[in-house]
Amino acid sequence: MTQAQIGVIGLAVMGENLVLNMASKGFRVAVHNRTAAKVTAFLEGRAAGQSIVGATDPAEFVALLERPRRVMLMVRAGDAVDATIETLLPHLEAGDIVIDGGNSHFLDTRRRTAALAEKGLLYIGTGVSGGEEGALRGPSIMPGGDERAWPFVKDIFQGIAAKVADGSPCCEWVGSDGAGHFVKMVHNGIEYGDMQMIGEAYALMRDVLNMTPAEMSAVFRGWNAGVLNSYLIEITADILAKTDEETGQPLIDVILDAAGQKGTGKWTSETALNLGAPASTIAEAVFARCMSALKEERVAAARQLPGPSERFSGDREAFLRDLEGALYASKICSYAQGFQLMRLAAEEYGWQLDYGSIAQMWREGCIIRARFLDDITAAYATTPTLSNLLLAPFFRAAIAEVQGAWRRVIGAAVTLGVPVPAFSSALAYFDGYRSERLPANLLQAQRDYFGAHTYERVDRPKGEFFHTNWTGRGGETSASTYSV
Amino acid sequence: MTQAQIGVIGLAVMGENLVLNMASKGFRVAVHNRTAAKVTAFLEGRAAGQSIVGATDPAEFVALLERPRRVMLMVRAGDAVDATIETLLPHLEAGDIVIDGGNSHFLDTRRRTAALAEKGLLYIGTGVSGGEEGALRGPSIMPGGDERAWPFVKDIFQGIAAKVADGSPCCEWVGSDGAGHFVKMVHNGIEYGDMQMIGEAYALMRDVLNMTPAEMSAVFRGWNAGVLNSYLIEITADILAKTDEETGQPLIDVILDAAGQKGTGKWTSETALNLGAPASTIAEAVFARCMSALKEERVAAARQLPGPSERFSGDREAFLRDLEGALYASKICSYAQGFQLMRLAAEEYGWQLDYGSIAQMWREGCIIRARFLDDITAAYATTPTLSNLLLAPFFRAAIAEVQGAWRRVIGAAVTLGVPVPAFSSALAYFDGYRSERLPANLLQAQRDYFGAHTYERVDRPKGEFFHTNWTGRGGETSASTYSV
Repeated sequence: MTQAQIGVIGLAVMGENLVLNMASKGFRVAVHNRTAAKVTAFLEGRAAGQSIVGATDPAEFVALLERPRRVMLMVRAGDAVDATIETLLPHLEAGDIVIDGGNSHFLDTRRRTAALAEKGLLYIGTGVSGGEEGALRGPSIMPGGDERAWPFVKDIFQGIAAKVADGSPCCEWVGSDGAGHFVKMVHNGIEYGDMQMIGEAYALMRDVLNMTPAEMSAVFRGWNAGVLNSYLIEITADILAKTDEETGQPLIDVILDAAGQKGTGKWTSETALNLGAPASTIAEAVFARCMSALKEERVAAARQLPGPSERFSGDREAFLRDLEGALYASKICSYAQGFQLMRLAAEEYGWQLDYGSIAQMWREGCIIRARFLDDITAAYATTPTLSNLLLAPFFRAAIAEVQGAWRRVIGAAVTLGVPVPAFSSALAYFDGYRSERLPANLLQAQRDYFGAHTYERVDRPKGEFFHTNWTGRGGETSASTYSV
Repeated sequence: MTQAQIGVIGLAVMGENLVLNMASKGFRVAVHNRTAAKVTAFLEGRAAGQSIVGATDPAEFVALLERPRRVMLMVRAGDAVDATIETLLPHLEAGDIVIDGGNSHFLDTRRRTAALAEKGLLYIGTGVSGGEEGALRGPSIMPGGDERAWPFVKDIFQGIAAKVADGSPCCEWVGSDGAGHFVKMVHNGIEYGDMQMIGEAYALMRDVLNMTPAEMSAVFRGWNAGVLNSYLIEITADILAKTDEETGQPLIDVILDAAGQKGTGKWTSETALNLGAPASTIAEAVFARCMSALKEERVAAARQLPGPSERFSGDREAFLRDLEGALYASKICSYAQGFQLMRLAAEEYGWQLDYGSIAQMWREGCIIRARFLDDITAAYATTPTLSNLLLAPFFRAAIAEVQGAWRRVIGAAVTLGVPVPAFSSALAYFDGYRSERLPANLLQAQRDYFGAHTYERVDRPKGEFFHTNWTGRGGETSASTYSV
């Protein structure tokens, strides 16, 4: 065999499946893993008979690659990425390309892009979404970093990526340094929001309407034919229809309601806080996972903290129709928050992000794939400078249509005691964004009262600051060390 | 004059006022500032005739202090603290005490405590709350760090601190390394929540009931005589009664509704995310500030995004009574989140926190001072191991009494289009905490479906993980690099 066109390090499920995907598209791939036995097992197992070679030694592995070498890391994000790069460096030469396909933090990717550029190496940090099946059959790929590397990997990446209906690949160059991993992080934050909002719809069906999993599955199946059409709605319908082989019960009923969170949803929320982006729905989704993890505390608290005595007495079909609208409107707001976060990050880091292209990259292959993303692409095609998705005519009309339903559903949840933190925060985002006046004038007055922090006035230009001696006791010394 | 008992570096308003407070209690104080003119101006101005000396050179400043030296930094948090410590080090000797009284991040204080201990110096990081007036008349002081230093500063700190009704000071030793600054950070996060929730009550009065500032001032004044009695409610009543000298209008109406956020509320939210603590109400308060800052966008959006057409048609007095209950219940939940966050941090960092003592430190002197804190102290006195404030009999009864009012107010806000993100998240926290079953079982099923992340079962011990081949297509390789 001639030299391999790309090398992949890291043979966990995502790495293996990406390699098999590449080989199935006709690319010659070399593989390497820190644990040598994994290489042998893979070559003799799933990779057998395909255009895949391997090496258990880094030098031998690099020697398998054509120049400029393309080396893709599929290792655990964090120190393992730096350590793997270190083992590679002695064997690479100027112009070679190192690609990190894991879920690295975009700030690490910024650092690594700069560090490798100093050594003459071209670095790419790329988001890869779609889970194990996406990796095998066509993921969404979001590459950023050193743009000089893009022509050398474009054919491979676009070759293995998912395709939208017109055949165009779910992979385009995102932007410089950490832009690719940033966009992947926001994707995952949005995914957190989507999953939480679907969970809230499920909780309302289960706990307010007392529906069976089979009944709920049918509702989600129906929704999947409408505006909510998406992978996550589709698999929710599948999940709710699944029977547990052990007990014969619906499987969903024997799964523990305790979720972990330590990943990219948390990063998205932290980044939003740092950039001043009101991505509250994504943060609520993270906090909802934290709350779910306190299972024992909740079980104990449930016995001590009674909720409201009201029971649902409305029209069940009407409520389900409202619920579809509530989920749709909340989803629009959650995506609006994600795109707003990307816009603020682009300003901060000097990225030129093409928001319509990003929505199109998420159209297939990844976890949040949905028909809905076409509408986002269309919105940005019409108005590339759109400041917020909520202002696009399509989404304005969409929310206007379901606004009443959305408010009725949250009102019912609030009355009946079912927690809907993501629905509620999405609505608060909508109502906040369309508020010419928020109550922050009172907040500014309070801060000036107790801390001499000053305020701006509605009848003066922004940037002019005023202080009132509210009590007649405070001095004129301005606050400079104390800030809340 | 004999040597000074304590030296203070940094003569912005907080530093100056703390020094004057110390001198007024009979302590001899030396002052220093990087800008020498500030020292002279202070000594000739506000400090004239008191037991205050000063020096413009660090060596001379340190020479003014008795041994072991107590040097308190009142400089801007961040690099300035490290830089000031560097200038001091050549002049200090083993056993001397360095105190950081600024709003430093608790992780910085952890680092500095360890670094100075290596040099034989005793480090204290202390929260100081109360704004400029508190600093002058008696702040709340939350010291942590090297406990060997506590006996040397206890008399000064407790001497200048605010006192509760029985005369005990709002200052006790909090815990090792960063514990003091951590508790101060949570105080500030809670303060963010309090301010946002008061703002939401104000917005409902203003935008739903169309009340005048004078009318609203009277309502807050009335609330201040009840369970909501607190400094922030009191100053809100003052603020709403204030007339703008320039225009003759109520001053609140000419203050711009755009607030900043870059401080400790953000840190509290980040820390909550890192520790897995569902402090959603504090995070919503930070995001509400982010939203407020987008004033121009909001003004433009207000013209394009219509809200509901419903108008309030209920009983105004009844709504105001409900509103008091809603604010009280939301506040209980916000504090429950803050104390839960401290509990999780104590586990993570090995601190022995006395929650009743912390509530008592906040009882006077600081921005969140309130009668309510006595009830928290009492709850922990009864049950020191209380896992959540919501489970204390007093607060269980308090929420039970106003639960209906709380739900009615949020329902009205949702129906009428007034954003109440903090109220809503507080209620979702309550309803989530008392939920034996949350919808996270669906979330775990989704994660296992698309990423082979496994789940736990309700009929098996925690820590046993199961994977279902949902589609019949996925392999048996487990996920190890990919996590959402």
